[in-house]
Amino acid sequence: MIISDRMYALGSARSVIRELFEYGKMRAAQVGAENIYDYSLGNPAVPSPDSVNRTIEDILDNEPSIAVHGYTSAQGDAGVRQAIADDLNKRFGTAFGKDDLYMTCGAAAALTICFGALVTPECNEVIAIAPYFPEYGVFAGNAGGRLVEVPADTKAFQIDLKALEAAIGPKTRAVIINSPNNPSGAVYSEETIIKLAALLDRKSAELGHAIVLISDEPYREVVYDGLDVPYVTKYYKNTLVCYSYSKSLSLPGERIGYVLVPQEVEDHDKVYAAVCGAGRSLGFVCAPSLMQKVVGRVTGQTSDISRYKKNRDLLYGGLKEIGYECVKPQGAFYLFLKILGDDTEAFCERAKSLDLLVVSGMGFGCTGYVRLAYCVSEDMIKRSLPVFKKLYDSYR
Amino acid sequence: MIISDRMYALGSARSVIRELFEYGKMRAAQVGAENIYDYSLGNPAVPSPDSVNRTIEDILDNEPSIAVHGYTSAQGDAGVRQAIADDLNKRFGTAFGKDDLYMTCGAAAALTICFGALVTPECNEVIAIAPYFPEYGVFAGNAGGRLVEVPADTKAFQIDLKALEAAIGPKTRAVIINSPNNPSGAVYSEETIIKLAALLDRKSAELGHAIVLISDEPYREVVYDGLDVPYVTKYYKNTLVCYSYSKSLSLPGERIGYVLVPQEVEDHDKVYAAVCGAGRSLGFVCAPSLMQKVVGRVTGQTSDISRYKKNRDLLYGGLKEIGYECVKPQGAFYLFLKILGDDTEAFCERAKSLDLLVVSGMGFGCTGYVRLAYCVSEDMIKRSLPVFKKLYDSYR
Repeated sequence: MIISDRMYALGSARSVIRELFEYGKMRAAQVGAENIYDYSLGNPAVPSPDSVNRTIEDILDNEPSIAVHGYTSAQGDAGVRQAIADDLNKRFGTAFGKDDLYMTCGAAAALTICFGALVTPECNEVIAIAPYFPEYGVFAGNAGGRLVEVPADTKAFQIDLKALEAAIGPKTRAVIINSPNNPSGAVYSEETIIKLAALLDRKSAELGHAIVLISDEPYREVVYDGLDVPYVTKYYKNTLVCYSYSKSLSLPGERIGYVLVPQEVEDHDKVYAAVCGAGRSLGFVCAPSLMQKVVGRVTGQTSDISRYKKNRDLLYGGLKEIGYECVKPQGAFYLFLKILGDDTEAFCERAKSLDLLVVSGMGFGCTGYVRLAYCVSEDMIKRSLPVFKKLYDSYR
Repeated sequence: MIISDRMYALGSARSVIRELFEYGKMRAAQVGAENIYDYSLGNPAVPSPDSVNRTIEDILDNEPSIAVHGYTSAQGDAGVRQAIADDLNKRFGTAFGKDDLYMTCGAAAALTICFGALVTPECNEVIAIAPYFPEYGVFAGNAGGRLVEVPADTKAFQIDLKALEAAIGPKTRAVIINSPNNPSGAVYSEETIIKLAALLDRKSAELGHAIVLISDEPYREVVYDGLDVPYVTKYYKNTLVCYSYSKSLSLPGERIGYVLVPQEVEDHDKVYAAVCGAGRSLGFVCAPSLMQKVVGRVTGQTSDISRYKKNRDLLYGGLKEIGYECVKPQGAFYLFLKILGDDTEAFCERAKSLDLLVVSGMGFGCTGYVRLAYCVSEDMIKRSLPVFKKLYDSYR
């Protein structure tokens, strides 16, 4: 049978994270779940706020089935888009309108739509700042784009601006950032964003075409210690925002998010039309209707983020006490641990032999580190610390 | 701003159907909804069966939020896939398993995934039988494919097999069929399917590669007079089924459906892997989780189809009595009316001047006809018949 080589390769390649997760389930059956320390998956462990299910029930009770489950307009229900714009404007002092928003089936769809709208054969490079979400390369490839990697600033996991400048060239179409960051847990400071904007402005002028900044921010609300996450569109006008409610409302399975094209974006209406066209081409018109209506009502609310903070403090404190090195996560629910020894894969394997499941930084473009997803139970973290100690001692 | 020309064109092109619908709303505001006869949109007017909302409530009441709204596996929840396979096997005497199904965000996603998995640069033609759903061309184009059109058999709206044979060539990758058909309302008979399978078998052997039959069947259950819709995989082994619950359960906004890759498909595991890869590339892994669980429980049930039948009988009978020509719809909720005069667009315009909104067959690859979507209120049909009479008389 003739099939697409690219799609076959993508479908048959084993996902390292998914495989670790399956291994963990297998081991749990063998030795008991209490003896497995699974930090592999970024699946929120904190339930959605009650308001989510209450809102679903209220909608089912009070709106006709045809309206609840029927088609919305291709770009999403107008009232929902207005409610989201109003909430953003209230929180960030912005001035978005409903016609700046395109509702999507989650963040993955938002990204494939943006790449589809922006990438052209002549201008097909998308720059990602390591460490970054591995699927960026897949999604850029779907639009015929090529991912260009900027090495990590491993001091603070901000942006190595010199390296970024060196990576920008005539084929640069967009730069994608993700703050709070998966996998480092870093939040880009206002200083970083200001310098990034200045660099992109200067390079856009030099190249003679605007470089688009894609801000992928599903973790925007998952942030600790009252830290402020700068709203990127206020610093760089050619910014598109990709958002998902997966993490803030613990709804990863429901596939609901949006693309935001602010009015300040050059040729706004054309860019928004291209976003609509990409959604249509990919088969993504009309995001799931009931969930559109739900997020329209609860947008801005979050799950109980304090539980992730408690986990962060427990895990970070425990690991530092043992002697591990890592930058303190400021947001998201990941901790990026510096490995012991100099072989990342060997470190992961040795951890795995202790039933401690951590993900190699290699897939994130950053060897020498492993990712710990701490969206898990507090109890598991407590039980895992002596095992981390054992792993540490084995390297002495 | 540099943007993709293709996506801009797709996003800025006005959808004829959508535009008519908006026009209808505008006119309704001017002259009253009771004076507008809007047959433009295929949005189900019959509500979902009560079991849908009851099942949602039951799931919310009895399952933890994390399980309900969390990620399922990329290809969909295993229990849901098994339930769907069991239901199909019971109804059609097939032997599908959970690993033959890939849950999708509706039929559009199912189609872009299939095209993505199958189309290669060397083998990129997808044949559609007129009249056909206009977005087929868009979705094929998304995968770098080219839609090849086979003219309609306007006698019975079955398949002109001679024309199909002539359209098949070395670049033919797939043939897509849609029965019950949008826009003709025809159901392909068992005789048609048997002859089609024989032709595809013969041509596959001649070409030296299997031609895939894509059966797009969101209207499978919307069928009248106890008519049997042959289950295509039983007649032609290299068949992929694209299904959506949009029409059977009146859930068009919820984006829930599947791709089915039967075991009989040549290189089944590779094809299924390519389907998974295409889902991943397009950003479609894990279809909406709550709705997966709902359709897993109510699959095989339908909305009250008898209401569409009543509409069909009323509209078909009324139009025939006036003197119009059309083939009696056997399924779906569309009637494909032969125009009066010889100018399809002029006919549509004259109808529109009477506030009778019908869609030109041109977009469906079949001029000389207009589509009437009768998923409307019975009352509107009754009120519209004198206006159809007026339109008819204006051509005498």
